[in-house]
Amino acid sequence: MEKFFDPKSVVVIGASNSSLNLGATICNMLKDYLHYTWPVYVVNSKAETVNGCPGFSSVLDLPETPDLAIIIVAARHVPGIVKDCAKKGIKRIVIESAGFAEGGQVGEAMQREIDEVIKTNGIRIMGPNCLGTLSTRNKFCSFYGVNPSLVEMNQIFEAPGNISYTIQSGGVAVLVMESLYYDLVGINKVVSIGNKCDVDEADFIDYFQKDETQVIGMYLENVADGRKLMEAAKRSRKPILMFKVGRTREGAMAAISHTAGMANNDLIFDSACKQAGIIRLKSINELHSLPKMFTEMPLLKGNRVAMFTNSGAFGSIAADLLVEADLRMVPLSGQTQDKLKKAGQVFNVKNPVDIGPAPPQTYLDIFEILLSADEVDGLLPLLSVWQTFVIDTLHELLKMCKHYDKPAAIYTPNAVAKSIAIRAKHRIPIFETPEEAVRALSVSHMFHESLLKRGFVYDQVECEIMDDNRTITGKMEAAL
Amino acid sequence: MEKFFDPKSVVVIGASNSSLNLGATICNMLKDYLHYTWPVYVVNSKAETVNGCPGFSSVLDLPETPDLAIIIVAARHVPGIVKDCAKKGIKRIVIESAGFAEGGQVGEAMQREIDEVIKTNGIRIMGPNCLGTLSTRNKFCSFYGVNPSLVEMNQIFEAPGNISYTIQSGGVAVLVMESLYYDLVGINKVVSIGNKCDVDEADFIDYFQKDETQVIGMYLENVADGRKLMEAAKRSRKPILMFKVGRTREGAMAAISHTAGMANNDLIFDSACKQAGIIRLKSINELHSLPKMFTEMPLLKGNRVAMFTNSGAFGSIAADLLVEADLRMVPLSGQTQDKLKKAGQVFNVKNPVDIGPAPPQTYLDIFEILLSADEVDGLLPLLSVWQTFVIDTLHELLKMCKHYDKPAAIYTPNAVAKSIAIRAKHRIPIFETPEEAVRALSVSHMFHESLLKRGFVYDQVECEIMDDNRTITGKMEAAL
Repeated sequence: MEKFFDPKSVVVIGASNSSLNLGATICNMLKDYLHYTWPVYVVNSKAETVNGCPGFSSVLDLPETPDLAIIIVAARHVPGIVKDCAKKGIKRIVIESAGFAEGGQVGEAMQREIDEVIKTNGIRIMGPNCLGTLSTRNKFCSFYGVNPSLVEMNQIFEAPGNISYTIQSGGVAVLVMESLYYDLVGINKVVSIGNKCDVDEADFIDYFQKDETQVIGMYLENVADGRKLMEAAKRSRKPILMFKVGRTREGAMAAISHTAGMANNDLIFDSACKQAGIIRLKSINELHSLPKMFTEMPLLKGNRVAMFTNSGAFGSIAADLLVEADLRMVPLSGQTQDKLKKAGQVFNVKNPVDIGPAPPQTYLDIFEILLSADEVDGLLPLLSVWQTFVIDTLHELLKMCKHYDKPAAIYTPNAVAKSIAIRAKHRIPIFETPEEAVRALSVSHMFHESLLKRGFVYDQVECEIMDDNRTITGKMEAAL
Repeated sequence: MEKFFDPKSVVVIGASNSSLNLGATICNMLKDYLHYTWPVYVVNSKAETVNGCPGFSSVLDLPETPDLAIIIVAARHVPGIVKDCAKKGIKRIVIESAGFAEGGQVGEAMQREIDEVIKTNGIRIMGPNCLGTLSTRNKFCSFYGVNPSLVEMNQIFEAPGNISYTIQSGGVAVLVMESLYYDLVGINKVVSIGNKCDVDEADFIDYFQKDETQVIGMYLENVADGRKLMEAAKRSRKPILMFKVGRTREGAMAAISHTAGMANNDLIFDSACKQAGIIRLKSINELHSLPKMFTEMPLLKGNRVAMFTNSGAFGSIAADLLVEADLRMVPLSGQTQDKLKKAGQVFNVKNPVDIGPAPPQTYLDIFEILLSADEVDGLLPLLSVWQTFVIDTLHELLKMCKHYDKPAAIYTPNAVAKSIAIRAKHRIPIFETPEEAVRALSVSHMFHESLLKRGFVYDQVECEIMDDNRTITGKMEAAL
């Protein structure tokens, strides 16, 4: 697999200097933007050089055998080219061309022809009808048509992170990457798998166990091999967040025209996911909004949640959501309520804790009282940023959560555009709606439960936490 | 009611020059920011002038009887002040002070005392525990604590619109106003009704029938008088979008501590809403995201929806959502499919219509073909803004929707922050997620159905539509 993400030589088959050539955009990205230092060759009918990448009229003429071939030509030429790659000894191929199984019988026949070649030659293929791979740490990307002048793309490579995605659609991959630019978490790897005639989503679950990945995100239009997928998921020590289309007949039909998906029975699939510990997402946006709950916060190890708000209505709104998500509005103990009374400015010392205009120290005291309470497993702060000090207290809250090994899902009842701006500027994991914050607690708890159910020994390990100025010691959960 | 929104003289009881005085913020807003030209008096213990508003030690000393009294003093003083107002002949009072029924037995007793006075003197009261009213066209606002330097507040008054809100929480009112700043639609009036010991949500449904209101938004923590509310809703020719907390026991309990709400049985309430044509919202954000579907688009008069995407995956994603929302992925007729084939660049001429890279004219042709098709009631465009011309075609789409009297709920599969920016800059009614766009079609259809069910004669009337450069004639629906 590694050669798909970190090839030491590449050939782009179909890159040329004609206008609007998609293959050329891959060369441009690698050379001009990512400063990829390994050889990039191109193959086109004129054997012309593209942006400094030496051109050849056939793969067979290349001076060496590249680690990876990227094919982006009209579908009818692909089977012949795959055969040439096999002859040349190329073992990893990304087929980006569309027009195979999603385009009717002729396409299906071509796809079968390719299958034959790769099986007899030990080749692994991604696609067809895909974008291939992106690896932030290796500064490699095979996506065509990406405009590297986009600020979003800049940040993706400049701040590698720990989320890896397997996505069966280029459009969704772009949406997710663009959205993460406005969020906290960074990307490790992205794979756009398209029609997945060979390498599929299950392969990447196993692969992502061994690298820097902390959370696996998946967008699927169909499942290649249900049993293989579920077995891989059961082995996963890392949360798998999956959005799948085709819950309805109409959605499944639309997916067939798009990536040749097969309609799978959704009820059966759903129950298999639950058993395997896969978290099914309710909206496409959860693919980029929820991972931060896993990377920035400890897991929710019980279902007892305490709320704390400076804007009364949001306590009621979130209470409904919490209960509907099968979490529990924990009744605070007499001892905890007494402590809260002493904190001052508290309108309501029962859950949801509701305060009026109060100074920063009161916020910190309440965080500490709630997180240290035995009856509380996690916190749902609903804090309107009515003065900038609220942001400072949230920074402190992040440290306290690590110290007490309990999570907080933060919602700021402000306009979404404002909350996004605060999140980006101050690097605080803020969720955009109360629904999203409650959902984050819910998936955190689900994952913890599934780790236990799947028999992973779960423990807290002492570790070092990097603070702005110093290294402090804290606890982190780990599935051993 | 009019005097609550457009008083020609006001007294703010409790405004003083002491630091952090909330009453003074009301005076400052009226004088410095809204340039309110009618008399503003204040009442405080020192009879001191506040920001040029003449001060008196009692309401009884005022040189005239003001149209409206705003009371913002400690709760225990309120009953006495209400009696003074009655003596002075004041007929409209906003009680902003908290600490009544939401604060236990003493508070309840005070509230009963006030009820007595107003009944015998023909006074109407808003509150207690509220912010009162805001009217953009009258440039009047009784909200305390609002920072008029906020850009959001500026726009609210500078661009009056046609949405009116009745909101039982100051925090939610602020969230909604702040959010609309980043959206298309403007505000007509906002009422924060608090504990509603007298004037309640039903009164405002009737009142909003007669003014510039096009859509009524409501946030309720409890219902004062269920029968009165439902009767008013049945009479409403304007859509009522309502979010209510207290769906669960925990949410209802939290609401009681906040605005003295009574737990209402949610199932019964839900079925009453359906009968009365009230649209219950699923999230607090729908309060500000959905009204634009009513102000910017014709109603969805059937359930047959055609989708059009330039990013294949989103067709499948939205197909699931559409079916789950009880709308129909309409099978396009042979004639429509033939026309689409001729438009060129179309990957899939069946619903969802899916195109590759295509010029602007192809987009316009497809809009026209779909909107003019007899089998299509409305459109769901899922168009990634990959080049700026896509925005231009969406402008044309708005005109076509008016011409064909069919709506489109537009989603751009880009990062939410980007979609919000495009919406604000180009004044296009863009929804932030595919869920939101489908929901907009769904509520539009629900409202149309409920108009018919409630016996409103519904017809298209010829009207003039203002374009950028010229006045064109088109059709608009109207409940007669």
